[in-house]
Amino acid sequence: MEELTRLPGIGRRGAERLAFHVLKADPDEAIRLAEAIRAVKESVRHCTFCYSLCDASPCPICESERRDRTRVLVVEQPKDLIALEETRMYNGLYHVLMGHLSPLDGIGPGDLTADHLLRRVDDPGRNPGGIEVEEVILGLNPTVEGDGTGLYLAEQLRTRGVQVSRLARGLPTGGSLEYANKAVLADALTGRRAME
Amino acid sequence: MEELTRLPGIGRRGAERLAFHVLKADPDEAIRLAEAIRAVKESVRHCTFCYSLCDASPCPICESERRDRTRVLVVEQPKDLIALEETRMYNGLYHVLMGHLSPLDGIGPGDLTADHLLRRVDDPGRNPGGIEVEEVILGLNPTVEGDGTGLYLAEQLRTRGVQVSRLARGLPTGGSLEYANKAVLADALTGRRAME
Repeated sequence: MEELTRLPGIGRRGAERLAFHVLKADPDEAIRLAEAIRAVKESVRHCTFCYSLCDASPCPICESERRDRTRVLVVEQPKDLIALEETRMYNGLYHVLMGHLSPLDGIGPGDLTADHLLRRVDDPGRNPGGIEVEEVILGLNPTVEGDGTGLYLAEQLRTRGVQVSRLARGLPTGGSLEYANKAVLADALTGRRAME
Repeated sequence: MEELTRLPGIGRRGAERLAFHVLKADPDEAIRLAEAIRAVKESVRHCTFCYSLCDASPCPICESERRDRTRVLVVEQPKDLIALEETRMYNGLYHVLMGHLSPLDGIGPGDLTADHLLRRVDDPGRNPGGIEVEEVILGLNPTVEGDGTGLYLAEQLRTRGVQVSRLARGLPTGGSLEYANKAVLADALTGRRAME
């Protein structure tokens, strides 16, 4: 129970329930859980190219020759990568920053994989297939920290002759104008685009 | 109580509470409420230019000479106009459609103020100050009905030599990538823009 309460979102009562479940479960099931926990720590690592979590390095996305290796979409966390992959709208590569800049918490560029991204842009040898990066798409969260991190990266990339873009900001599809906050409406107004 | 239960969101219990409040209130207060209800029906009308609700026609927005009269932002409801005005990011005029196309409910272009918008574009005399409309911005809700209405209007405006744009669609500021749905992420990807 002591070990279980260290997991996020599990308090004393939850840990008790889980512990009793393990006690009641048949031995095979309990061993399988223990093995899965050991295996994930031993086999899951960061992809050497994109820093995503995977049991193989390079990860299947970096390894695939059917992906557009000239584009790199920068996200904060592996779970953002998963969300974007699920749209099936993007065929390029990723780069996982492993967080965002947060000066107040003492998190600077050195605590992220920002330098690896810059080296990936500078040296095609560090991008899968030895292919040169032509576009870096900033896919950071639309928050103060995400924006700050995006500005820092854009600044660093400016002199490197690579195209830098960021995900569109505006009204979320399915929502309504009436309940959108001022910041969303301001983005929607300034980012308006011509109808073809 | 019978009259009160006809108001939206007021049931029998609510009507009872309101009715007793009116009975207990001092006569002046009750008369003021009655007068306000009468006054709103008598004095609030649609602006002849933009169809927004106002106690004056033309409304202060259409009347103001400091607004950019070459731009018209089309919204579904007067409350959308209020939400956009609160951003203080837009200095043009508006056009309130009074709804959206909804063929299944039998709502066609004739039930909206769509024709008035087209006439406003065709004839500068129907736009405040007799100034020609140069850009129509579609500010409809990011829903199936809003998109359908936008496509209809864009189609009608295409041949009229006026610029047609629509509000930006994408990630809502302050949100997070992880919890954005697929449609929002797809919009964010396809609508991405270069960082200056």
